Amino acid sequence: MPANLTAAVVIIGNEILSGRTQDSNLTFLGKRLDELGIPLLEARVIPDDEKVIVETVNACRRTFSYVFTTGGIGPTHDDITSASIATAFGVDLERNNEALACLEAYYDSGNINDARMKMANIPKGASLIKNPVSGAPGFQLGNVFVLPGVPMILQAMFDSMTYRLIGGDPILTNSLATNLREGEIAGGLGRLQEKYTDVSIGSYPYFRHGRLGVNIVSRSTSRGSLEALQSELRAVIEECGGKIIASPDS
Amino acid sequence: MPANLTAAVVIIGNEILSGRTQDSNLTFLGKRLDELGIPLLEARVIPDDEKVIVETVNACRRTFSYVFTTGGIGPTHDDITSASIATAFGVDLERNNEALACLEAYYDSGNINDARMKMANIPKGASLIKNPVSGAPGFQLGNVFVLPGVPMILQAMFDSMTYRLIGGDPILTNSLATNLREGEIAGGLGRLQEKYTDVSIGSYPYFRHGRLGVNIVSRSTSRGSLEALQSELRAVIEECGGKIIASPDS
Repeated sequence: MPANLTAAVVIIGNEILSGRTQDSNLTFLGKRLDELGIPLLEARVIPDDEKVIVETVNACRRTFSYVFTTGGIGPTHDDITSASIATAFGVDLERNNEALACLEAYYDSGNINDARMKMANIPKGASLIKNPVSGAPGFQLGNVFVLPGVPMILQAMFDSMTYRLIGGDPILTNSLATNLREGEIAGGLGRLQEKYTDVSIGSYPYFRHGRLGVNIVSRSTSRGSLEALQSELRAVIEECGGKIIASPDS
Repeated sequence: MPANLTAAVVIIGNEILSGRTQDSNLTFLGKRLDELGIPLLEARVIPDDEKVIVETVNACRRTFSYVFTTGGIGPTHDDITSASIATAFGVDLERNNEALACLEAYYDSGNINDARMKMANIPKGASLIKNPVSGAPGFQLGNVFVLPGVPMILQAMFDSMTYRLIGGDPILTNSLATNLREGEIAGGLGRLQEKYTDVSIGSYPYFRHGRLGVNIVSRSTSRGSLEALQSELRAVIEECGGKIIASPDS
């Protein structure tokens, strides 16, 4: 993959920070970006606060190749993402005729009130991201992609716009679980990590059905390295007196 | 609450960014910090990368009253949080005898190998946060609290150390669901938000059992304002021709 290709996700919403809503968009975007070969290097969760949105989006769009925001593009008073993105880019927020046509096609005539019209206000110069579920579009401005917070809608919109992203080699993953404890396999894992410099090896303890163990997750763009590592890893587990519980490739 | 009391959470771990692991520590910490009257204003998810950990922790500890990190304090090669925090503070990472005693009390004698000994390496000057579940402690250094990633252990450790935090008035929450669509109630909600300046009103569309609707969540340290708002909100929903589906206080 190009060495400099990176992504960040900015999750906008008080409800995530208060713990009332469990975000699930990050896991979706993380998996999709892996498939597209675009390493997701940071996510930030921030409140519905214009100053914070402006500062965060401006910091991220200068640091990462792509920025994906989620949340805050609906019709209510706390939906301030579109206006904040316009401020971040120093452009006007204007009534967008294409977005208005999307809303008119979705809502019965007479049902587009002032609140819903707000969803046709888009920063000048942005290109729309169509919403196949519920009318109101997102948009792309520069390297920033503005998506909704509702997971079902976000997923449909993201999958409809991936052609706009320049990707790299897909990041492949192998995972394998063992009944060993982390402290028992740490030495062997560390030696494998030193040897396989093009693989990122992660170790995650689990406690399931009353049993402790470790999930070992290996990630790389090289299928050859992953397979060679997997074979050595099985040997290390056996040497440590452990068993392999499962090896789901995903 | 004191005007300047704020918190940030730094979630450290490649597995969250790759979408393989669904974080649940943020919702736990968000709820607990609400109860403690400490507004959680930002969360960042970052990889197991020393440079990024150092920069992120240093940015957050200067901006927020409290910083809570999760993940990366185990025995394996990818557990680099403790060393990175030492670097962030410009102090040595040293063998901590109290931490060593915790490990010796937890593991059978002879089971503390080099990898597990790593969990007794703590930045100089830190005070330990005991781990009632699995031995290896976290620690506090200045306004930074270093916690593990495994939710069960993080929760036990956080609840054991809240006496160290100066809190404020608890942030109270009312929630109420209606069968109205966001666009139908947006105008009324906006007027209520303008009137109740000490309440934060959030609006979250849902799609459940084939039905669309909105959850309206109000948050404030003032029980009186919340109750007055709730009463007006019920009237606004009726005026808009909607029904209240449920009003779970939480």
